[in-house]
Amino acid sequence: MDLSPDWVVGFVDGEGCFYVGINPHPKMTLGYQVLPEFRVVQHERDIQVLYALKRFFRCGVVRRNGENRYELRIRKLSCLQKVVEFFEHHPLKTKKNVDFKKFARIVKWVSEGRHLEPEGLIEIVEVALSMDRTNKVKTKKILADLQQRYGRRDSPPQAEMSGVR
Amino acid sequence: MDLSPDWVVGFVDGEGCFYVGINPHPKMTLGYQVLPEFRVVQHERDIQVLYALKRFFRCGVVRRNGENRYELRIRKLSCLQKVVEFFEHHPLKTKKNVDFKKFARIVKWVSEGRHLEPEGLIEIVEVALSMDRTNKVKTKKILADLQQRYGRRDSPPQAEMSGVR
Repeated sequence: MDLSPDWVVGFVDGEGCFYVGINPHPKMTLGYQVLPEFRVVQHERDIQVLYALKRFFRCGVVRRNGENRYELRIRKLSCLQKVVEFFEHHPLKTKKNVDFKKFARIVKWVSEGRHLEPEGLIEIVEVALSMDRTNKVKTKKILADLQQRYGRRDSPPQAEMSGVR
Repeated sequence: MDLSPDWVVGFVDGEGCFYVGINPHPKMTLGYQVLPEFRVVQHERDIQVLYALKRFFRCGVVRRNGENRYELRIRKLSCLQKVVEFFEHHPLKTKKNVDFKKFARIVKWVSEGRHLEPEGLIEIVEVALSMDRTNKVKTKKILADLQQRYGRRDSPPQAEMSGVR
């Protein structure tokens, strides 16, 4: 199955999902992991379309998602950069493009390592919070925690930093 | 918003619906109406995409579908023939194409008036029954009713026909 760029844009306008997970993670300097991912979920009868998308982007993993469903999931940063580049050159036509642009900003920030600094992480969490699929309750708590610990200063004093996991 | 054929195929692979309603209808000779329709439903934020699809096919009506949703609905037979022709030249890539082919057969049969003859109507109901979105319980009852009244003969005797609404 060969896919054309326009078909991919149309299909992702319908079925794609740009998601940024923010998860507690003891091994991260600031205590949270930023996990952007691009996902397309289909009923198992259309698993071939997921493999075709995987070939198209030369990225990702096809895996189970629920009982009768599969997903193509792309998490690797270098792969997400390719996905972002593709949709920058072939813009989505639905309002999903608004979420895509936020996603693209976060992928860029993560690739610059900004999620490793308090100010950058707070900005990322704020943008993620404004995205469609984000778990608002959980993410608001994380934002409150970060703001309490680091405020909105450009660089927090060393004394505060030392208490961070 | 300009749509390319490939984008339309990709988007409809994700979001389109080919549906054939079979409804009791006292004014129809055989007591049932065959109502094929092509539908794309979107959240109200993407109503512009529905209008763009309407312009693309030069057909259909954009109308409410639930609280926050709108749909483009195409029911007019001459319009459905255009839709069928388009997807015959630009095939869907998902398994939705299986349903589309059944839909296309029914649209052709209806345009030939086959739904006005018992044998044709029974065939249409049988095909509709095998489609994804069909209400199976309701449609099976209709099929049983038609089979009981007309059996599988090519042309039922006039005596039986006179009893039909």
